[in-house]
Amino acid sequence: MTNTLIQETAIDVNVVMQQSQHAFDSYKKISAADRAAFLEKIAEEIEAKRAVLVSTANAETNLPEARLNGEISRTTNQLKLFASLIKEGSWVEAAIDTADATRTPARPDIRKVFVPLGPVVVFGASNFPFAFSTAGGDTASALAAGCSVVIKAHNAHVKTSELVFEAMQIAIEACKMPQHLIQHATGKGNVVGKALVQHPNTTAVSFTGSFSGGRALCDYSNERQAPIPVFAEMSSINPVVFFPDTLQKNAAALAQTYAGSITVGMGQFCTNPGLLLAVKSEALDNFLQILGEEITKVAPQKMLHSGIYHSYNSGLDEMLLQKGIQVVARVEKEVQDIEAQPTVAKVSGQTFLANPHFKEEVFGPFSLAIVCEDAKELKAVLSSLKGQLTTTMMATEEDLTQHQDIFELQQTLAGRIILNNVPTGVEVCAAMVHGGPFPATTDARFTSVGTSSIKRWVRPLCFQNFPDSMLPEALKNDNPLNILRIVNNEWTREKISKK
Amino acid sequence: MTNTLIQETAIDVNVVMQQSQHAFDSYKKISAADRAAFLEKIAEEIEAKRAVLVSTANAETNLPEARLNGEISRTTNQLKLFASLIKEGSWVEAAIDTADATRTPARPDIRKVFVPLGPVVVFGASNFPFAFSTAGGDTASALAAGCSVVIKAHNAHVKTSELVFEAMQIAIEACKMPQHLIQHATGKGNVVGKALVQHPNTTAVSFTGSFSGGRALCDYSNERQAPIPVFAEMSSINPVVFFPDTLQKNAAALAQTYAGSITVGMGQFCTNPGLLLAVKSEALDNFLQILGEEITKVAPQKMLHSGIYHSYNSGLDEMLLQKGIQVVARVEKEVQDIEAQPTVAKVSGQTFLANPHFKEEVFGPFSLAIVCEDAKELKAVLSSLKGQLTTTMMATEEDLTQHQDIFELQQTLAGRIILNNVPTGVEVCAAMVHGGPFPATTDARFTSVGTSSIKRWVRPLCFQNFPDSMLPEALKNDNPLNILRIVNNEWTREKISKK
Repeated sequence: MTNTLIQETAIDVNVVMQQSQHAFDSYKKISAADRAAFLEKIAEEIEAKRAVLVSTANAETNLPEARLNGEISRTTNQLKLFASLIKEGSWVEAAIDTADATRTPARPDIRKVFVPLGPVVVFGASNFPFAFSTAGGDTASALAAGCSVVIKAHNAHVKTSELVFEAMQIAIEACKMPQHLIQHATGKGNVVGKALVQHPNTTAVSFTGSFSGGRALCDYSNERQAPIPVFAEMSSINPVVFFPDTLQKNAAALAQTYAGSITVGMGQFCTNPGLLLAVKSEALDNFLQILGEEITKVAPQKMLHSGIYHSYNSGLDEMLLQKGIQVVARVEKEVQDIEAQPTVAKVSGQTFLANPHFKEEVFGPFSLAIVCEDAKELKAVLSSLKGQLTTTMMATEEDLTQHQDIFELQQTLAGRIILNNVPTGVEVCAAMVHGGPFPATTDARFTSVGTSSIKRWVRPLCFQNFPDSMLPEALKNDNPLNILRIVNNEWTREKISKK
Repeated sequence: MTNTLIQETAIDVNVVMQQSQHAFDSYKKISAADRAAFLEKIAEEIEAKRAVLVSTANAETNLPEARLNGEISRTTNQLKLFASLIKEGSWVEAAIDTADATRTPARPDIRKVFVPLGPVVVFGASNFPFAFSTAGGDTASALAAGCSVVIKAHNAHVKTSELVFEAMQIAIEACKMPQHLIQHATGKGNVVGKALVQHPNTTAVSFTGSFSGGRALCDYSNERQAPIPVFAEMSSINPVVFFPDTLQKNAAALAQTYAGSITVGMGQFCTNPGLLLAVKSEALDNFLQILGEEITKVAPQKMLHSGIYHSYNSGLDEMLLQKGIQVVARVEKEVQDIEAQPTVAKVSGQTFLANPHFKEEVFGPFSLAIVCEDAKELKAVLSSLKGQLTTTMMATEEDLTQHQDIFELQQTLAGRIILNNVPTGVEVCAAMVHGGPFPATTDARFTSVGTSSIKRWVRPLCFQNFPDSMLPEALKNDNPLNILRIVNNEWTREKISKK
């Protein structure tokens, strides 16, 4: 068993993508039940390697063991969730319009179902060595959909990625899945990545990382003769609106909660609350003071790698040089190695509106409070924001009654709107939307977390006038998969009686 | 009541798009039931203008009255179909994962539903003055989804478009819909079109036309700060494979059927069968001879406009100049004005494979037969094709038994695969897929015909931890819309009992 390591040449990428196409051509014929068993086996093999995975990832990413253990559980649960989704099977959106010979012109029998796109390229994310990397949500959903996968390991945790890849290889052999169904590539992202995205056999791409990285992948795709979908999650500062009544009543609790959300995982989450908005008041001053005190209690921790550490520091330095910004609190403990200093700063609404730099993401434990003159200015600030993954309201019932307009505005900003919770923590479930208007992601119509994320890897295929024997299982008269289908515009699991 | 006619300046586009945003902000709050009644009213008002619509469109497009009457019925049925879709309501893909306080960490209540994107720009198509234009499928599905619409009328039938727009304006007033919910723009496509696509308020675009037109719109979108979805249907030559046994047994019937499909509407359909593939045989020679005879019986008719007429003739001339091509049949009757001459030609598989020009679409009543040496060459020809809207198999049971591999290959080529039917004729129904791999359309994951086409105009929005009173109807515990939802991973119409 050897890893397929792509060197930095297009020739090797060509071999890998041809192998991926070949594996796809077999894999797409494998039943959903067998694909589900395979996903469960991957989960089992990852579980079997848990101890070495945690120690290896800890050494590579500086993430603490408890977090890594949690992330492994999330990863295996995700694999099992997709297994149950495809065992149930209704996600394929089967629709059937039966023939009608009495109509003029006669209506033919027409049936549609989702089919997998083909080989998918998954770029591992630096901040989630398991859940958004090698066997993470992108890979799990693509395999569940029936696609083959080529993983480009993130250079920050190549050893962890290789171990996870080994676990998947064991599952491939145990489940007799096609060789090369999953392949593993390392190397410079901008060389290998470009070649992978532009190979004719590649049918879709997923990426979680920086705006410049995501935008480059989109440009590579647009340069292709036939552009392909690039699902890139790129940047989000996740605005949180603190309403007056709750600030008045709950300042201390809010400050504790948000000090935790801003610094959890050293702020290295795409849903980190980077922007705190409120109308000026004594209650807000009080809240910011307590928030500052809470932030300075946080023990500095090492960031994921020196690249992220340096860009946090340079991003923060540049932010703090902007005119009108004031530091609310900064962890002043002596930091060692690549430990980050959690920081909160504030600006007035007017200052924020005048300087687009304040909208830039500083990836790490930093949050900027916008002190607005009034609700009107707060709405102007919200309206000026680019697309976000999340937007949050911290509010009492009284606040909500008085600010329906802000609730409406917030719904236009992001893929997920949150009330009296923190944005960090992304539940893996059917109702999750982890996606949002550009530049949060490249395509707000899809989510990268939760069961709906499988829809990124399929297209509908329509069969006109075929006999039952030639139709996919999902479309046969007897409904052998017992899935929910739209038959002559009615949702049903019933069989179709032959006429 | 006056039409909003955009002059060729960005300033007017700006006014129109601001009005569209304003109308959207009201319209998105209107219930699905009221949106449905509005769509039905539009259908009624179009019906009321049927006679003048037919005569006006006939004068503008040269399409015969019977065809135009049929297209109007298709258009009004389409509006009614979307009305029933949104009255039933389950299309919004509501998903609910209820809170679980017992879990560590506690799971919050999470719910998602589709919400409309915003103002949509619809470009009318030259070849369908009703069904793919002003109140056609794109407009009907966008209005059903809850979007406002700006229509760019096709210059080939501006008067028809204005009449349809008037019918919609009457419906807007009768149903008390927001002013400017639908607006009508005329002018040069490449000037007004670019400004419309690039306006910040525009959230999605639909287009049916040439490859260069569609590609230009995509480029305009990619130049935006935040790119938007462009659903362009651009070009397809709709390969049809004639298998040996059916050619042997049914040559005369096949020839009649396909002479009809190639020349119906003077070939001005995006699903026109432009490529006929078969392995060489006496039966094929016989079929082509009869096809030729049938084609020469077809009476020439005027094309849609002189632009299409000239590009048909120049495209055909260029095609017939290619080395190795032989004319099978060409209507030699004297043609007048802008009447097209239906034409069938043939080339060998080898010649076809050597010259990419043969893959170009000649929009009009032209079809190219590829005479392959054997099944292997036929597969090579199929594999060399770009993405298509449709691909068709004309085959007996014996043919199908022997050519499973060709069936598999054809499934990768197009959005719709057809057995023993013609590709012309696109049924408006839930199971239709009118879309296909690039360059047939820009996004094979969506259809522009049928109820699923509504999904082009929405994105999922997720609500975390909201009280029932603040949730959209589709997500409330009591399920007041009685729609099918995924509740804790189960499909159900049941209410959610409060805990």
